[in-house]
Amino acid sequence: MQFLSQTASDGVIESLFTVDGVPGVLWSPDAGGDPAPLVLMGHGGGLHKNAPGLVARAAYLVTAFGFHAAAIDAPGHGDRTRSASDAAWVETMQSARRAGEPLGPIVSAFNASIAERAVPEWRATLDALHALPEIDADRPVGYSGMTLATEIGFRLAAAEPRIGAAALGAAYASEALMEVARRVSASVQFLLPWDDPEIDRESGLALFDAIGTEAIGTEAIGTGAIGTGAIDSVEKSLHAFPGPHERVPSYEAHDSAGFLARHLRPPVRSRGLPASARGVRTRLTCGRSST
Amino acid sequence: MQFLSQTASDGVIESLFTVDGVPGVLWSPDAGGDPAPLVLMGHGGGLHKNAPGLVARAAYLVTAFGFHAAAIDAPGHGDRTRSASDAAWVETMQSARRAGEPLGPIVSAFNASIAERAVPEWRATLDALHALPEIDADRPVGYSGMTLATEIGFRLAAAEPRIGAAALGAAYASEALMEVARRVSASVQFLLPWDDPEIDRESGLALFDAIGTEAIGTEAIGTGAIGTGAIDSVEKSLHAFPGPHERVPSYEAHDSAGFLARHLRPPVRSRGLPASARGVRTRLTCGRSST
Repeated sequence: MQFLSQTASDGVIESLFTVDGVPGVLWSPDAGGDPAPLVLMGHGGGLHKNAPGLVARAAYLVTAFGFHAAAIDAPGHGDRTRSASDAAWVETMQSARRAGEPLGPIVSAFNASIAERAVPEWRATLDALHALPEIDADRPVGYSGMTLATEIGFRLAAAEPRIGAAALGAAYASEALMEVARRVSASVQFLLPWDDPEIDRESGLALFDAIGTEAIGTEAIGTGAIGTGAIDSVEKSLHAFPGPHERVPSYEAHDSAGFLARHLRPPVRSRGLPASARGVRTRLTCGRSST
Repeated sequence: MQFLSQTASDGVIESLFTVDGVPGVLWSPDAGGDPAPLVLMGHGGGLHKNAPGLVARAAYLVTAFGFHAAAIDAPGHGDRTRSASDAAWVETMQSARRAGEPLGPIVSAFNASIAERAVPEWRATLDALHALPEIDADRPVGYSGMTLATEIGFRLAAAEPRIGAAALGAAYASEALMEVARRVSASVQFLLPWDDPEIDRESGLALFDAIGTEAIGTEAIGTGAIGTGAIDSVEKSLHAFPGPHERVPSYEAHDSAGFLARHLRPPVRSRGLPASARGVRTRLTCGRSST
């Protein structure tokens, strides 16, 4: 792992690095403190590790929760050169878009090819990041990203037991991706853009349905009581929002961060069960009346 | 409004009351303080205002957010007598269940009848609660509940502009309820039990699709930036979870409380935009290297 530069602004330290030649970026709290959990941030197809939406979500995880967040450029993206074979994929995709043909299957096959190459890169990056003293390698790791990052994220979560929670979404339900999704045992929050011209609703519903069906049983979906500090053993939730996948409402980004936080943070002690769960009651007054 | 009794336990003051003969309960923070927003809690069919799950969610809203929460018994439920006509509905429902007939349409028609009667009772209760000095009548009011409470909640939200956010779910998409859902302009988080034997997925998806389509446009769904403290103007989100409607995972209850909180609380000032949104950067060091 080579660190290239480090800058700080608004409570976030940004460190650029490479691992085996793959360029990456690490965002960390500038306050220091105890080792903190890590979230891996995947970028969408055609984007890169410093895409504005990704950086905003990473900065929120750092400043609101004290986490570390990291991104790498996917093969052929960002600071990496695109292979002739990948360039041919892109041309096929653009032709289909011009011809008004369904894009899902073509994009999905291209993204699957990138994802197969990206998974070992992410695992090497995770090894390197977990060797840093400021990152808590004993806590589960989070993963967050849509479209291309979801093709990568399902495969990474299926292969990598350190991934404990993944916020994914907006991917085409190819048979290959469905097969991978069934083998995921991490908690998943799955975002479905309700009005996306290129990814149909049925794809999103089918992918959500498949998640974890081979790896976990429905009975493993936790039912801890609200307010007791209990973390559900496994979480599987579909969040559908109006609009296309490029326009994730801030409330969904907010909920995704909260989802990652409750799985990555150490369990907290109960701040007090609700009265009804304890059966302890104290009569105070009787007979207040108004109106 | 008549107050009958008041007890306190674990940070929650519980006050039993009646409004025009309808029995209700108000849960409030025992710490006092400034006037705080109110959440109306609807109970499911066959349940009552002090059902354990409802009380646990109310206690969480009070202790975690400092809100007030209130519930009333629906017509024919809890401490209220059941009319001969309602008893006949229940008998029809039970016969259908024994015969293995589809329950959705029968339950929905019965719940619609109860909901028509419950809406004016909720509005009178809201008037009385808003007259109490500890409740902030200037903030939007929340509503939370599933099944019967959703039949009531859509109608209450469509009729009552004071409802700003409603956490609903698990209801049959009758034509009557679809028509009401289209007229709702409040923010809605809609829970869909993914494996419910009595409420099919398609009903949940159709109801979610209908929400607000006559009252608001997709462009009104907010896109405030994460971490800026901005509250989206209108929120519309579907949350699907594994299992039946009786077994809402605690993470969904947690997210519903967070949804209500972000719409009921006064807007907060930004705690700092992400670095990338401000363009302010400070170079610190360069060239850290490890491994």
